[in-house]
Amino acid sequence: MQETPDTPATQEERLAALTDRLRTVYDLGAAQALMHWDQETYMPPQAVGLRSEQLATLSRLSHEHLVSPETEATISALEGKDAPDPKTEAGATVRLARRSFDRATKLPESLVAESARATSLAQPAWVEARQRADFALFAPHLEGIIDLQRRTAECLGYGDHPYDALLDLYEPGARKAALELVFEELKERIVPLLARVTEAASREATARDSVLLGEFDEAAQEAFVRSVLTDLGYRWDRGRQDRVVHAFCINIGGPEDVRLTTNFSPARIDKALFTSMHEAGHGMYEQGVDPAYSRTPLGGGVSMGVHESQSRLFENLVGRSRPFWSHYLPRLKEAFPEAFAGVGTEAFYRAVNEARPGFIRIDSDELTYNLHILLRFELEVALIEGTLSVSDLPDAWNERMERYLGLVPENDALGVLQDVHWSAGLFGYFPTYTLGNVLSVQLYQAALEDHPEIPTETATGRFETLRGWMEEHVYRHGSRYDPEDLIPRATGRPLTAAPYLEYLEEKFTDLYAL
Amino acid sequence: MQETPDTPATQEERLAALTDRLRTVYDLGAAQALMHWDQETYMPPQAVGLRSEQLATLSRLSHEHLVSPETEATISALEGKDAPDPKTEAGATVRLARRSFDRATKLPESLVAESARATSLAQPAWVEARQRADFALFAPHLEGIIDLQRRTAECLGYGDHPYDALLDLYEPGARKAALELVFEELKERIVPLLARVTEAASREATARDSVLLGEFDEAAQEAFVRSVLTDLGYRWDRGRQDRVVHAFCINIGGPEDVRLTTNFSPARIDKALFTSMHEAGHGMYEQGVDPAYSRTPLGGGVSMGVHESQSRLFENLVGRSRPFWSHYLPRLKEAFPEAFAGVGTEAFYRAVNEARPGFIRIDSDELTYNLHILLRFELEVALIEGTLSVSDLPDAWNERMERYLGLVPENDALGVLQDVHWSAGLFGYFPTYTLGNVLSVQLYQAALEDHPEIPTETATGRFETLRGWMEEHVYRHGSRYDPEDLIPRATGRPLTAAPYLEYLEEKFTDLYAL
Repeated sequence: MQETPDTPATQEERLAALTDRLRTVYDLGAAQALMHWDQETYMPPQAVGLRSEQLATLSRLSHEHLVSPETEATISALEGKDAPDPKTEAGATVRLARRSFDRATKLPESLVAESARATSLAQPAWVEARQRADFALFAPHLEGIIDLQRRTAECLGYGDHPYDALLDLYEPGARKAALELVFEELKERIVPLLARVTEAASREATARDSVLLGEFDEAAQEAFVRSVLTDLGYRWDRGRQDRVVHAFCINIGGPEDVRLTTNFSPARIDKALFTSMHEAGHGMYEQGVDPAYSRTPLGGGVSMGVHESQSRLFENLVGRSRPFWSHYLPRLKEAFPEAFAGVGTEAFYRAVNEARPGFIRIDSDELTYNLHILLRFELEVALIEGTLSVSDLPDAWNERMERYLGLVPENDALGVLQDVHWSAGLFGYFPTYTLGNVLSVQLYQAALEDHPEIPTETATGRFETLRGWMEEHVYRHGSRYDPEDLIPRATGRPLTAAPYLEYLEEKFTDLYAL
Repeated sequence: MQETPDTPATQEERLAALTDRLRTVYDLGAAQALMHWDQETYMPPQAVGLRSEQLATLSRLSHEHLVSPETEATISALEGKDAPDPKTEAGATVRLARRSFDRATKLPESLVAESARATSLAQPAWVEARQRADFALFAPHLEGIIDLQRRTAECLGYGDHPYDALLDLYEPGARKAALELVFEELKERIVPLLARVTEAASREATARDSVLLGEFDEAAQEAFVRSVLTDLGYRWDRGRQDRVVHAFCINIGGPEDVRLTTNFSPARIDKALFTSMHEAGHGMYEQGVDPAYSRTPLGGGVSMGVHESQSRLFENLVGRSRPFWSHYLPRLKEAFPEAFAGVGTEAFYRAVNEARPGFIRIDSDELTYNLHILLRFELEVALIEGTLSVSDLPDAWNERMERYLGLVPENDALGVLQDVHWSAGLFGYFPTYTLGNVLSVQLYQAALEDHPEIPTETATGRFETLRGWMEEHVYRHGSRYDPEDLIPRATGRPLTAAPYLEYLEEKFTDLYAL
């Protein structure tokens, strides 16, 4: 081990030096997060160009601090003789610092710059292609991005499949082969279930969700949403909620500052509420991380999939449940005295759970959602490994839509062009949505085994037990345990799709009297 | 000149390298500005500690980038053979970069740290002292801060007087000796004028400003304020206005993002309006700087005094003028149909210009304001030079209050403890308020000489000519010219108090029929 005289002498001192150095990276990250939040909420429109320059500077500084030879030397020394026990916080810190350092250094600057340029050109091309429903306008950009994603995967390195390298960026430890098994299981049971639901629904005279339509004052919606989020346990003294075009949750550097955003649909009562409960799930996770992990590699949620488990848990398992509406429908009626006259809990519960195949992923229901993801997962794996060409992509999309959802999009704007992800170079991201769905039920069941009273509490608008269980088993650990360690610790077994499928089958068999 | 091989070879390349390096400093400054803005407007309360850590990191990074040996070498090389003409933008860039570098390097880190610690401890002590009206609680802190300010002045260096070194931080080129002449002139003419006004006012049965009192809906106030600011020419596509406890204007890195803040008093119609016009004066200055100066030393307003000239100009010379209210009173009555019945332009004009000696600077009127500043200027000069001790300060304050304003505060909360500045180590800052007042009239008169139609335009709610003149002669130059160059360029002569005094005498002689 080559060491300069001023390198700290003990492992303890080295760890302190590493943590100190990384704090700068995290604080620069917080500044970038605040700039992003501001850009989506309150920034004056003319400042777009200026802000992008500022963000580029902060991103460069952050990279410089992370990849410095001092960081490398310190991490290497910590990994050497007397390395901290991997099971301890110190061990996790070194492991996560190494992961960040490797990710930041494995990609040559030229590849990073080329990728940034390609996606920034692809964005407006994708917007135009979608507007005109003309895939040809986007195809050459997508080809370039896929090539860059392949090169990225080669630089990052992988065991079995290049897709694993990309997946790992969003879901550490996840592998394509394992995911395929999960998706296969989902496909085998959800596709026939959906067919039975669709058949049953076709015999109904009116759409179940028609009771959700009307004219709903935004201020009244906001007040109702706020009261629900307060009940769930989202802490307003450590967060806030603002209006944006596309909802998100963002952590500005620590559990003391985790902000939600949402948007209000004046014509539909459920949109803003479920969006907000979803984002509050993300938010409570970030707010619940051990404050001692702030500004260290242990801070923040561990993966996209675990994050999504929390948003889906509060959106679907809580928000689309009978006990929830037995408590909140009367309150919703108080907030909107003119609406929902004569609508009972059961009708409302059926309305917020209507399953209906559609073209658009973000408008899809709990049952069809994973089929949208499955399709994208299969296609992006094939694109990355080169068994599907970009020119064949729209046909492949439509063929799978028909097979899984029984629909063929009228045009590519309603099909292959609907999502922003690929134009932004986000390959390997989609499957984390389904991982989140699967894990939400596995975690909920584990909480229920410890506390069978959870549904009863939900029916009284209390969520301390459920949130407390998540806090204890998931939130507080931040990024300390990778998902493959965290999930068995929390639930006693590795990730498994069975509880999720049982939940879906039971719920929708009951809902549609199958 | 010692140069390493990779130092740029030509002066042009050196200038580009310097500008490039400083851009990082300005972008870090923009991130800090956004964090400050956010802290005052929307940040969750529990994030205070986290935010202060983040700000400390950004401040340290910014300092490190500014004071690096590379910066010094580049500036020195630029100042050497073939130095750019000081009259050019390049020359100004080098001059200003040198000033920033010297300020950042002349103070030893230990002194900076000691000052930060002293003021952060002094803040809560001052708050408590003011709450209890007990100067003794604050006195030891103030003694420490004055000692640190003296040491700061010694490190920065000065010609005649240590106060000059502090003054220069806020008003480059200003000198105590010159300021004393200005203040002497103001004192000689304002003190007797105020005495005559007070005597005349004492014969009036009711307070003139009673017509401004009532109950005013905040949303209606906000809409009215917004319409006035739009008319003035504040650009909402490059800014915004939010609510805070203490109003301010902040530039988030360039003319495309300059934000105002204000607060609304439900019981008084004039507070939010004049506060907003004041901040919009600052804001239009920053919005009007040549965009090519963005992220360089030439960007942003040049000094506190020139800045205050713009805020005072729009607050007082425009906002408290007859032509302004001949146009806006009818509009105010439309916004508040219940209020101001039977109040004419003249009565309203008199109401917003009521002169009445009071204890509190921030509540004072156009006539008495400078006496509050004069008193502080005299006292802080004496404190810095050591001719006044902290223990004698409250008596000296009260003695001067009686001499200049004819009042003695009942307690120190209404006297020497009222302002935050000294507890924050801001010595040399107060006089820039009066410089701004003086300069506002000098600039307004110069604009009027070029465009005698300005008051007529004001009376129709149009301000393009006035704002256009300021843009041409002040705003667009940013920091390129120091005030001592900028003022003669804009007005044809150096700073002079005569026009300001004539303005005050004419206005208040007329208002009080002296």
